[in-house]
Amino acid sequence: MNQPTLLTLLEAQPDAYVSGEEISRQLGVSRTAIWKQVRKLEAEGYVIEAVPRLGYRLKERPSRLTEPELRAKLQTRVLGRHLLLKAVVASTQNEIRQLAEEGAPEGTLVIAEQQEKGRGRMGRSWLSPPGKGVYMSLLLRPDVPLPLAPQLTLMSAVALCRALTRVTGLAIGIKWPNDLLVEGRKISGILLESAAEDERIRYVVVGLGIAVNLDEADYSEELRARAVSLKMAAGRAFDRAALIGEVLLEFERLYAVYKEQGFEPIRTLWEANAVTLNKTVTLHTAQGPFDGIPRELDASGGLRVELPGGGWRTVYSAEVGDAAPL
Amino acid sequence: MNQPTLLTLLEAQPDAYVSGEEISRQLGVSRTAIWKQVRKLEAEGYVIEAVPRLGYRLKERPSRLTEPELRAKLQTRVLGRHLLLKAVVASTQNEIRQLAEEGAPEGTLVIAEQQEKGRGRMGRSWLSPPGKGVYMSLLLRPDVPLPLAPQLTLMSAVALCRALTRVTGLAIGIKWPNDLLVEGRKISGILLESAAEDERIRYVVVGLGIAVNLDEADYSEELRARAVSLKMAAGRAFDRAALIGEVLLEFERLYAVYKEQGFEPIRTLWEANAVTLNKTVTLHTAQGPFDGIPRELDASGGLRVELPGGGWRTVYSAEVGDAAPL
Repeated sequence: MNQPTLLTLLEAQPDAYVSGEEISRQLGVSRTAIWKQVRKLEAEGYVIEAVPRLGYRLKERPSRLTEPELRAKLQTRVLGRHLLLKAVVASTQNEIRQLAEEGAPEGTLVIAEQQEKGRGRMGRSWLSPPGKGVYMSLLLRPDVPLPLAPQLTLMSAVALCRALTRVTGLAIGIKWPNDLLVEGRKISGILLESAAEDERIRYVVVGLGIAVNLDEADYSEELRARAVSLKMAAGRAFDRAALIGEVLLEFERLYAVYKEQGFEPIRTLWEANAVTLNKTVTLHTAQGPFDGIPRELDASGGLRVELPGGGWRTVYSAEVGDAAPL
Repeated sequence: MNQPTLLTLLEAQPDAYVSGEEISRQLGVSRTAIWKQVRKLEAEGYVIEAVPRLGYRLKERPSRLTEPELRAKLQTRVLGRHLLLKAVVASTQNEIRQLAEEGAPEGTLVIAEQQEKGRGRMGRSWLSPPGKGVYMSLLLRPDVPLPLAPQLTLMSAVALCRALTRVTGLAIGIKWPNDLLVEGRKISGILLESAAEDERIRYVVVGLGIAVNLDEADYSEELRARAVSLKMAAGRAFDRAALIGEVLLEFERLYAVYKEQGFEPIRTLWEANAVTLNKTVTLHTAQGPFDGIPRELDASGGLRVELPGGGWRTVYSAEVGDAAPL
């Protein structure tokens, strides 16, 4: 699915020289074109050694994400193909909403190395130190009526959960509606913002924040109890570009399933990965808190909660907490 | 409910002088303060005659809407209290969305004398000649989960229908979801745009376009078959400021009912005023057209349609047209 690029060829043989002839053959371009691409990578911060007769070797790569690297790791057809990589933004959500209003196409992706005002659910801030996390926002233009928008929130959680599980091998669970947890601590945040005209969705922007390579020192004392990075949980660092590639690929697959088959398969996957079901929790709603046992999702994506005294209540908007001990 | 203003006092006696003493007593302000208010009205385009010993008389009023006039006609507690009156805008919806993003409070109202890019449903343009229509957008910040947003669309139609019926005495029917018709021709358009964060609505802006005093010459040949103004239908012109006051009052009442009692009473009122129910129509959806007989709304605001071969289908997004004749 993926076209080879100069970068992927050099990365495939990190300790050897790749001849110009070989590169020329594999990429189907002239020697002069290769030289231009080498210059481009150097401008991005890569250090490439060129030795006459031997060829090229990748000596150093920049620690920040680069566009050539990201493009080399993209395996999608649509998502991320229109790519904007920024050093610092206030928030990737604000950036992409602006682009959405200007008519940017589905699949447009904004990635930032650092967010100065990273936002999470309910206007909370999202820890976004430079170079260690993934902060990105994806533009979708689904042909889905507005009442079904919460299904996209749940689909996003499933996509991120499956991709991160595959990459890291960690046991990752979904807390309703879309937080991902490792051993009860949060590793990522998802925020969907939608704009609608009457009952038609104009666009949805999916904000994804993933704590990839953050270290213990990046967290405040208070956050440490509730949040953890993939690196801290798995005991090793992860290639952020490869991880982004996996997340987008899984997202594109599930989005296609959703568009073709509707919410039913997504619901099944969500329930299979959820850690919120079948135990007593407190649900904090705008109308106040109540205790109950979430049992399943309904067809539109609401959470069906069994009440202690019998009966059921379906919630669309709530924060889930542990039930208060008796 | 309404505080008297200098304008309401002068308008109450169009052919007589109102003494400064009387005004001073009724408004509870000094003679100097009255003089300042007279100056303010004059700056708005009013012509006020001041005769020593007799007092003040309103000689002429501007043909455009003025803020003092609108404030004099407002009977609401919240809606329209934060008021922006513009001569020309691209679209009142764009103006108010900007204000909403900047944190404007619920009830903020933008009214324009003229729209250069008035927008209707599905990106269609909306005829907005200067001085003859009402083009306004209202900001709501309802504490309602996103899946219920279509209920606000239906509530808006009911509010506008009831207010216009009361003011004009015309027989006005609602075409699903929110067009208002007089004898099959459209007199107003409603466009709700909502912004949400996950399953929480951040804000909804309600665009209301009302063809109040448009004349036949304002319509193209093609539009004349499908649209009509209140003036053309009723055979008399209407005071736009008074009409705006009535619409906002009815809107505020129904919004309070909705917040206290939910959608059920709104559904009853919508069905009572609908012209779309119980006859065969063609529903044009994104998945293609189909024929059926709309029978009622469901609890979330979807339209329940009985199919010719038996069975039911609920639609959230469709254009309703007459069924093709056999």
